[in-house]
Amino acid sequence: MKREIAKDDANRIAVERLCAADPVLVDVRPAGDVVPGLTRETVLTSGAPLPWPEYVGGQRTAILGAAVFEGMASDLDEAEARFAAGALRVRPCHDHGCIGSLAGVYSASMPVVVVEDRAHGTRAFCNLFEGTSPARLNYGVWNEAVRDNLTALGETIAPLLGEAVRTAGGIPLRPIVRRALHMGDELHSRNTAATLLFTRELFPALLGLAERRPADVRRLLDYLTASDYFFLRLAMAGAKATADAAHGIAGASVVTAMAYNCRDFAIRVSGLGDTWFRAALPRVDARLFPGYTEDDIEFMGGESVINETVGLGGFAQAAAFALQDYQGGSAEAMVEMNRAMYGITLAEHPDFTIPYLGFRGVPVGIDIHRVVAAKITPVMDVGVAGRKGGQIGAGVLRAPLACFEAAVAAYAARYQGEESRDG
Amino acid sequence: MKREIAKDDANRIAVERLCAADPVLVDVRPAGDVVPGLTRETVLTSGAPLPWPEYVGGQRTAILGAAVFEGMASDLDEAEARFAAGALRVRPCHDHGCIGSLAGVYSASMPVVVVEDRAHGTRAFCNLFEGTSPARLNYGVWNEAVRDNLTALGETIAPLLGEAVRTAGGIPLRPIVRRALHMGDELHSRNTAATLLFTRELFPALLGLAERRPADVRRLLDYLTASDYFFLRLAMAGAKATADAAHGIAGASVVTAMAYNCRDFAIRVSGLGDTWFRAALPRVDARLFPGYTEDDIEFMGGESVINETVGLGGFAQAAAFALQDYQGGSAEAMVEMNRAMYGITLAEHPDFTIPYLGFRGVPVGIDIHRVVAAKITPVMDVGVAGRKGGQIGAGVLRAPLACFEAAVAAYAARYQGEESRDG
Repeated sequence: MKREIAKDDANRIAVERLCAADPVLVDVRPAGDVVPGLTRETVLTSGAPLPWPEYVGGQRTAILGAAVFEGMASDLDEAEARFAAGALRVRPCHDHGCIGSLAGVYSASMPVVVVEDRAHGTRAFCNLFEGTSPARLNYGVWNEAVRDNLTALGETIAPLLGEAVRTAGGIPLRPIVRRALHMGDELHSRNTAATLLFTRELFPALLGLAERRPADVRRLLDYLTASDYFFLRLAMAGAKATADAAHGIAGASVVTAMAYNCRDFAIRVSGLGDTWFRAALPRVDARLFPGYTEDDIEFMGGESVINETVGLGGFAQAAAFALQDYQGGSAEAMVEMNRAMYGITLAEHPDFTIPYLGFRGVPVGIDIHRVVAAKITPVMDVGVAGRKGGQIGAGVLRAPLACFEAAVAAYAARYQGEESRDG
Repeated sequence: MKREIAKDDANRIAVERLCAADPVLVDVRPAGDVVPGLTRETVLTSGAPLPWPEYVGGQRTAILGAAVFEGMASDLDEAEARFAAGALRVRPCHDHGCIGSLAGVYSASMPVVVVEDRAHGTRAFCNLFEGTSPARLNYGVWNEAVRDNLTALGETIAPLLGEAVRTAGGIPLRPIVRRALHMGDELHSRNTAATLLFTRELFPALLGLAERRPADVRRLLDYLTASDYFFLRLAMAGAKATADAAHGIAGASVVTAMAYNCRDFAIRVSGLGDTWFRAALPRVDARLFPGYTEDDIEFMGGESVINETVGLGGFAQAAAFALQDYQGGSAEAMVEMNRAMYGITLAEHPDFTIPYLGFRGVPVGIDIHRVVAAKITPVMDVGVAGRKGGQIGAGVLRAPLACFEAAVAAYAARYQGEESRDG
């Protein structure tokens, strides 16, 4: 079936949407209230979907933990049985407008940030940063401390945060990302400035709420300032809303999602529907916390690379030289990696710029054909999880070429003849 | 008179003090209450002292305006007459623990931040940022708007800010500077991150005060967040307290002050007492706001280069690539200028580091002998004032070599024979 869509035109539309997106944090709500299709029997998790038995390690533990947290099983064993019997189901985050950090587990009562792209009307969700404890559900840990922390998030932090966000009339994320890129953040492994900028935007609303609920506001402020990582979830939801706005354009060969589960890395392409193109998980080039070795590394899923999909994270490394300390590498290597990403993308963002590169816009719009032609794959700044759960470091991940090759093959099959005319 | 102090030992002490200083903002008070010797008949101003007739242009206007603001004259003409008659006097900021921004004018009722170096017990003061209006006393403007703004600062902003600072138990500046250097600030022409970090440190105290005085707290918050420049005055007071801790060490050839008035640039040296070594004002390499030309530039004083004296500003340019936009230049040129400063300094700061340079410590301890030997002078990031008052741009200033040569000659005369033994 020959289509009348020209590739260059389709990609132009996709890239324009990636560049024009205007994500705004509008609310914080229990996931079950806002995420389409998220019943109490559903747990969402990171990456392309797998048959239930194939979820292993920390990702499996996190899924089971979520079911127990939700009260759908009294312990992990019962949860195992209920998933096996089909009474509970696992679904990929991406199909529900959600985006998972590491294991990326969602259940109905967990609070999520609600982000709307005001330019295109897309909506995306991300659950809240679990705080500074190394033991977190998204890093594959389930125990009483994790449960208590999730309960506190849902019962005290999230409702007040939601009230503050609504009081503020929503918090636009684009200006925060723009400024943070000039303040040493790349918006994936470094969110220090963005978290500060966000907190300052919220502070007037917090002052108002403090008159009635001083103790709660103090607790929320402690949560927001305890870590430099809070903003990552907002950036992810913003990136998901942005990428979704560019998805589904017939003929477009631009990547609109990258994600991994405990088994494989996968991408989606704007003009190729909801198919995931999969490849074996790559090796991560990591800097581990003291006491850990490479043998301790475990892949338990991760969709925060949606930020790279829209030009942030690894695609903006030259904005964040302080990352050397956290994930290793040198300034020179970071600049080189960043520069290489211009070779596989179709545009430079008009508003998100990198001071060191003379305010060049971040590279945006990963083109599967460029990736395959250059044999250069996206570089991603990621947190590294350990086999026993918890974060054990951070590093740089290179997407595997095979999933791009598979996508190119599928594109050729689908748009037979188009490429020779327009490419 | 031969002294028993070896130059290297003396410089080691001076540099250790520059590196160990721990400045803490402890209060905000009317200058007359805390600044030694600041009577109502006294106006402080930037730079080495000049005979009264030699103060010209914006610096003269600012001095006269301060006298009127203080109620010591009803208008500028009467102020002129009273200065000429000796009823009012002008004194240099540096001799009163103060540090002037541009014209750098202080009178008794103006509020100042009070900073203590907890490592060495020195105390320094700086007046408050006048806000975002281009018409400010420190840029040589005196009119009703300037007066009203100064009145509001003194009557509403400063008292509440002081209360918040005291409630917080003081705000240590060193951790803020350390973090801001990793967030794109060089702490002279860019203070974006430091201002945010400072504001966040103050949030808990502001929440407490908001219960009693919500409207005032909102006004203070608006002031703190209206501009990215608020922190500069804190950095300057911190740098002055730091530099003063390294001043007065017999035999030390380290620079402890750089400053300029409307006529000349001058430096002080740790082991050479309170003598100012002067030279003609250099040309500034500026990026001007639209509509201005180089002919519009006026020197009306400036002591914010105390920050360069302790290793910030121009000495940390490679931490602040976003400055290209504001003061011109390229990332490469900024790196090169920054690297050159290691050739004229004696140490690298243990705690203030530059991510791009692989976390190398900022160059600290400008040695007059190294400057003269290398014929490389300090590079400084400065605001640029216009002939008609107000800020018209920003740029890079190179200290003139002649004042360093004069200091080297004075050093040789004073420490005859020492240099050959230790240098």
